[in-house]
Amino acid sequence: MPGTAEGVDVPSASDVLRRCRELVRPALVDAVGRLHPWTGEMAAYALGWSDTTGTPEPGGSEGKGVRQALALLGAEAVGADAARAVPGAVAVELVHTFSLLHDDVMDADALRRRRPAVWKAYGTGPAVLAGDALLARAVTGLAETPSDHAAAAVRRLCDALNDLVAGQAEDLRFEHRPWHGPGAVGPEQYRSMAEGKTGALLGCALALGAVLGGAPEPTVAALDRAGRHLGLAFQAVDDILGIWGDPATTGKPVHADLHRRKKTHPVLAALAGGSRAARELGTLLASSRPADGAAAERVAALVEEAGGRAATRGEARRHLDAARDTLRATALTRTAARELDVLFAGLADRVR
Amino acid sequence: MPGTAEGVDVPSASDVLRRCRELVRPALVDAVGRLHPWTGEMAAYALGWSDTTGTPEPGGSEGKGVRQALALLGAEAVGADAARAVPGAVAVELVHTFSLLHDDVMDADALRRRRPAVWKAYGTGPAVLAGDALLARAVTGLAETPSDHAAAAVRRLCDALNDLVAGQAEDLRFEHRPWHGPGAVGPEQYRSMAEGKTGALLGCALALGAVLGGAPEPTVAALDRAGRHLGLAFQAVDDILGIWGDPATTGKPVHADLHRRKKTHPVLAALAGGSRAARELGTLLASSRPADGAAAERVAALVEEAGGRAATRGEARRHLDAARDTLRATALTRTAARELDVLFAGLADRVR
Repeated sequence: MPGTAEGVDVPSASDVLRRCRELVRPALVDAVGRLHPWTGEMAAYALGWSDTTGTPEPGGSEGKGVRQALALLGAEAVGADAARAVPGAVAVELVHTFSLLHDDVMDADALRRRRPAVWKAYGTGPAVLAGDALLARAVTGLAETPSDHAAAAVRRLCDALNDLVAGQAEDLRFEHRPWHGPGAVGPEQYRSMAEGKTGALLGCALALGAVLGGAPEPTVAALDRAGRHLGLAFQAVDDILGIWGDPATTGKPVHADLHRRKKTHPVLAALAGGSRAARELGTLLASSRPADGAAAERVAALVEEAGGRAATRGEARRHLDAARDTLRATALTRTAARELDVLFAGLADRVR
Repeated sequence: MPGTAEGVDVPSASDVLRRCRELVRPALVDAVGRLHPWTGEMAAYALGWSDTTGTPEPGGSEGKGVRQALALLGAEAVGADAARAVPGAVAVELVHTFSLLHDDVMDADALRRRRPAVWKAYGTGPAVLAGDALLARAVTGLAETPSDHAAAAVRRLCDALNDLVAGQAEDLRFEHRPWHGPGAVGPEQYRSMAEGKTGALLGCALALGAVLGGAPEPTVAALDRAGRHLGLAFQAVDDILGIWGDPATTGKPVHADLHRRKKTHPVLAALAGGSRAARELGTLLASSRPADGAAAERVAALVEEAGGRAATRGEARRHLDAARDTLRATALTRTAARELDVLFAGLADRVR
C-alpha cells in the first residue's frame, strides 16, 4: 500500500520487495538452472519454488528476498540502473540460501518456513552438497559478471562469507560457554557474532549494489555499515520472535530458542541485570535439566521480568536508528533512499 | 632419491612434493590462521598438523600435497617463479581439504588418513562449518592476490568448484541407480563423474599456476586438460585400492568400496562384460543383502575374474599416457616438465 512522505508517493516495504524479486527472478532461475539437476531440485525447494517432488509450488514458501532487494536498491541509491546489480542480488540470495541449508544442519533445525528443512526432506549429506553447490554458483556468477567492478564485488562477497562463517562458528561455540560468571558471553561478543552471522551479508548486499553501480569506496563502506546495523536490528527482532513469536507467524515452535538453550540477546541481557528475576533465571538456566514446556514458560517470564525483552527491543531500535542515520548521512538518490528507509523500518517493524 | 634421465638429474616424486610443500607452507599456515580459532583448529586437524586437542603432530597425517605441487609446477612450467603460484597452491589445497571434510560427511566415511574423519572427531555440524570456512578462505585468498591475473584465477577456481560439486552429486546419485539394465551407469557417465570429482581440481591446480604465471590461454587449457587426465588416472587407481588395497597402506578397511556398494570403475567394467563371472556378479549385487565379509570377498573375486581390475588398470594407464602426452605436446620449460612427468608417474604408480 503506497503512502506519502513529503508529498512524494513512497511504496510499501512489500511493494519494494516484490518489484525487486521480479527484477532478479530470471537471473536467479538461470543460476539455479546451471546447477546439477539434483542440487538444483534441492535449491528450488529451499527457495520455496517447488515441493520435494520438484513440482512447482508458486508463491508457497518463498522468502521475502530482502538481500536481493538491498542489492538492487544499493545500485539505485548511487544513481545506477538496478539491472547492474542483478548479479550481486543473485549472489547474495544464493549465499543466503546456502547458509540456511548448512545452518539448519548445524543447529538441527527441522523446520524452515513452515516446511521440513532441506536436510529433513533430502538427508544431511544432500543438504550439505546443495549448500556447497549454491555457494560455488554464487561466487561463480559474480566472478563472471562482465563488469569492471566484478573483481571488487567478488572480494566484497568473500569478506562477507568469511564473516558469516565466523559468526556461525561463534554462535555454535556460545553453546559451550557458561550462562554467567567469568566465561559468560558478554554483550560485545554477542554483537560481534550477530554482526557476522546476520549483518555481514545484509551489508554486503547493499555494498555489492553500490560497487556494481560504480560508487566510490566511502559510499560503498557507508552502505555496508548501514546494512550491518540493519542486520543487528534484524537479529534482535529475530531473538525476540525466537522466544515470544507466534508459531503461526514464525513457523517455529513456541519458545523455540529456549528449548534449544540458545544464548540469545534477551536471555543474556536479562542475566546481566542484578534483579531477583535475573538471579532466579540464572539458577534455572544453570541446572542441566532439559527445558520442558513449563520450564521454558517460566524462563520466558523471567527473561521478560528481568528486562531482557525490553533491552532487546531497545537494541533493535538503536541499530535501526543507526542504520537509517547512516543512510541519511550518505549522498544517495532520493527515491532509492526513501525505499531503503521504508524497507529498513518494515524489517524491524515486526516487534515495534 | 634422484634419478637421471637424458643425463639430467631428476628428483623423485617425493622430492618434488616435499620441495613444494615447504614453499607453500608459510602461506598455508597464514591462511589457516585467518580462520575463526575453532574452525582453524579443525582445519589444522584435517590438514594433519595437529590432533583433536590442537596439539601439534608434526608429520603425522599430512597429505602429500599433490595439488599445491601441481600449482607451483604449473607456474614453473610456463617460465614463472613458483612464488607467483603460491596463492593458487593455497587455494587448491584449501578447496581439497574442504571437499574431504564434506565428502566424508556425505559418504559417512569415518576414517581419513588412518584417523577419525573431522565429523567423527568434532561432530557433523562443526565439520560442515569448517569445510565452509576453508572454502570461503580459499576463494578469498585468491581474490585478494595482488596480481593482474587474480580475477582470471578466481574464475578458474570457481569453474573447478562447480565441476567438483557436480561430480560429487553424480557420485551420490549413482547409489540410486541399478547395477545393470536401462538405468545403469555407463562408462561415459562414470568418466564424467570422476573428471568432476577428481580431475577438475587437479587440472585447476596446474592451470592456476600457469594463469598466475602469466601464460597464454592455450597453454593454460592444455595444463588443465593434462591435470584432468591425471585425475582420471588417479581415480582409477583409487578405485582399485578401494577394493584390493592393503588396509595398512590405504588406511581404510579391506573391500571398503564393496561394503559401501559403491559404483566404481572395476565393478562397472566387470558388469559390462558378458562372461559367466559378470552374470554371477550382477546377480550377487542385485540382491539387496548387506555385503558381509565373505560376500565382499566373493564380489572382489568375481570383479577380478570378469576383468574389472584389468580394465581399470588399463583406464589408469590410458589417462596417465594422455596426461603425459598432453604435457609433451605443450611448450613448457624443461625442468618443470620433467618434474611433472615424474610426479604424474608417481601418482599413478601405486598399482602399476
